[in-house]
Amino acid sequence: MTAPTVHSGATTLDYDPSSQSVWIIDQTLLPHHYQRVQLLELEDFCLAIASMQVRGAPLIGITAAFGLALSLNRPQANAEQAYQALLATRPTAINLQWALDKVMQAITAQPATAFAAALAMAQSLREQDIAHCSTIGEHGVALIQQQYQQKQRCINILTHCNAGWLATIQWGTALAPIYKAQQLGIPVHVWVDETRPRNQGAHLTAWELQQAGIAHTIICDNTGGHLMQQGMVDMCIVGSDRTSANGDVCNKIGTYLKALAAHDNHIPFYAAVPSSTIDWQIDDGVQQIPIEQRDSAEVLSISGLDEQGISRTVTVNRHSPAANYGFDVTPARLVSAIITELGVVQANSKALASLREQLP
Amino acid sequence: MTAPTVHSGATTLDYDPSSQSVWIIDQTLLPHHYQRVQLLELEDFCLAIASMQVRGAPLIGITAAFGLALSLNRPQANAEQAYQALLATRPTAINLQWALDKVMQAITAQPATAFAAALAMAQSLREQDIAHCSTIGEHGVALIQQQYQQKQRCINILTHCNAGWLATIQWGTALAPIYKAQQLGIPVHVWVDETRPRNQGAHLTAWELQQAGIAHTIICDNTGGHLMQQGMVDMCIVGSDRTSANGDVCNKIGTYLKALAAHDNHIPFYAAVPSSTIDWQIDDGVQQIPIEQRDSAEVLSISGLDEQGISRTVTVNRHSPAANYGFDVTPARLVSAIITELGVVQANSKALASLREQLP
Repeated sequence: MTAPTVHSGATTLDYDPSSQSVWIIDQTLLPHHYQRVQLLELEDFCLAIASMQVRGAPLIGITAAFGLALSLNRPQANAEQAYQALLATRPTAINLQWALDKVMQAITAQPATAFAAALAMAQSLREQDIAHCSTIGEHGVALIQQQYQQKQRCINILTHCNAGWLATIQWGTALAPIYKAQQLGIPVHVWVDETRPRNQGAHLTAWELQQAGIAHTIICDNTGGHLMQQGMVDMCIVGSDRTSANGDVCNKIGTYLKALAAHDNHIPFYAAVPSSTIDWQIDDGVQQIPIEQRDSAEVLSISGLDEQGISRTVTVNRHSPAANYGFDVTPARLVSAIITELGVVQANSKALASLREQLP
Repeated sequence: MTAPTVHSGATTLDYDPSSQSVWIIDQTLLPHHYQRVQLLELEDFCLAIASMQVRGAPLIGITAAFGLALSLNRPQANAEQAYQALLATRPTAINLQWALDKVMQAITAQPATAFAAALAMAQSLREQDIAHCSTIGEHGVALIQQQYQQKQRCINILTHCNAGWLATIQWGTALAPIYKAQQLGIPVHVWVDETRPRNQGAHLTAWELQQAGIAHTIICDNTGGHLMQQGMVDMCIVGSDRTSANGDVCNKIGTYLKALAAHDNHIPFYAAVPSSTIDWQIDDGVQQIPIEQRDSAEVLSISGLDEQGISRTVTVNRHSPAANYGFDVTPARLVSAIITELGVVQANSKALASLREQLP
């Protein structure tokens, strides 16, 4: 079976003006099938986010923005109801509310032309995301380049979950520096945590890297500590679903464990986040960021292809209960630096406050 | 579907004198099917260990001991060849060599009655394992009791992989204190790491606890850090495949990450090990213990039951490579104490040397 291939420069979400709809990639089908689906009604958008056809904090936000904007061009449009319905789809990613608020502000500012204003805002957020991720990549690649200049060999980077272009519109956050390194000819190899329970690493990050021709190896989430202890990891780069004003990084469950191992082995641990991922209202991420609990079936069952290439779900245990926490919070003290579109900043309140002053 | 049930007091390995064979549980079929299989020839024993029908350091050792002993009662018996074949089945567990050496010593001491001497030694190792695990349970339950007396509520214990009775003959190592707690009426709840890639936690530990009626919850290996950070874990108890003379604990891959999280959150982290698991020849476990690398298919594929209850293997990614390290080493500085059959000792060279002096 050949892997599905996607042209370089592909984007995860495209607006189609003729049908006033949005095309996304159904990411639940990757890496086995590459299929684009069309979102027309508000319910399509809510379902796409809740069922994780789209996922990744930046992409969730922009999908919701288009969902809110396009809902205005329907009979009995109710912006507030649409806002609440979209906001309720996922609890942890801060970009969701951030993007919805931006669209609501556009609606409030231009009530007479609400649909056009909202759509223009959604399109602008999409363009901005592409630009910000590209800039994150440029800031981040300087850190990879430093490692390469020092070691003069392939640089081994560990990442957890998927913070690649599939999590954004293009480029990604954690993977953007890796794509930029490839463009610069810096040899890199990526350790891809499989990222149980939903396997976003084994499914999405591995697929992205394989498509791009970047050397990578899938590992169980248990493995990173051993690799770091044995000198097989030069740096870690992860994304974030919400970063608090003091630099605590909320990301996919298990990130905290990798940050502990990186710290224990003096390996730099970076979070790559657009500034829209920073929650300026929260100054203690460990205590204050709400952690999504999902269906225990995600832990007890795993999907994949059987010997005949048919997609199946198998259950590992039918008799015991399971718990499924979606995220954890890595304390700022374990984060070497935060890579944003405005530059690389220390993970502390003071450095992040300075960054905030530069925001438009 | 009802879970298979096993009578309390069951053992994982029984010698049948009438057929001069050994009956084991095919642990690759759990938790879905409980099936005992008979081992007759040396090849049966080697395959049972290599294919992980039996696994767990103590059980591997005793299975190999019976394999070596019973091989002597065949035409063209060659103890040295049988020793080497059995030793080559798994590289990490020190008990394997320890048990084989014990049987070889018995053979050398009584060459005229080698078969009888070897069999007697194998049987004695089996009896000793039951006694040692029971004593480990008694020493360990005192630590649970301390927590209970202090907190007066259900004690939450996290364990990684399977170090229950399935990993030994009876009682287990890490789970022995939990079974003893149940007997004493101390309320406990166990967080069961699923333990990718082979899911010994979700398959074996969960099955054991469900059979015993002990409250437990399966979690992804990524989850323990978050639970510890949020005060939902009172103590960790794990087993070990090899512990070095300085107290470094080699155990299933991912153990090191949990020990880091326990340390970061001031939660006691115990390794429960029979003294036969201690490798007195190695005084730096992190650098010196060989780590088994297994087939990458174990990472890329997962087995379970489909909707019809048929056992199937599904593949999560067909296009990317994977790496599969079986174990990692937790440095002694992260281990609160080691629970042995001779008592609870500090994880350092001096305390372990004192322990060694008490050994027969």
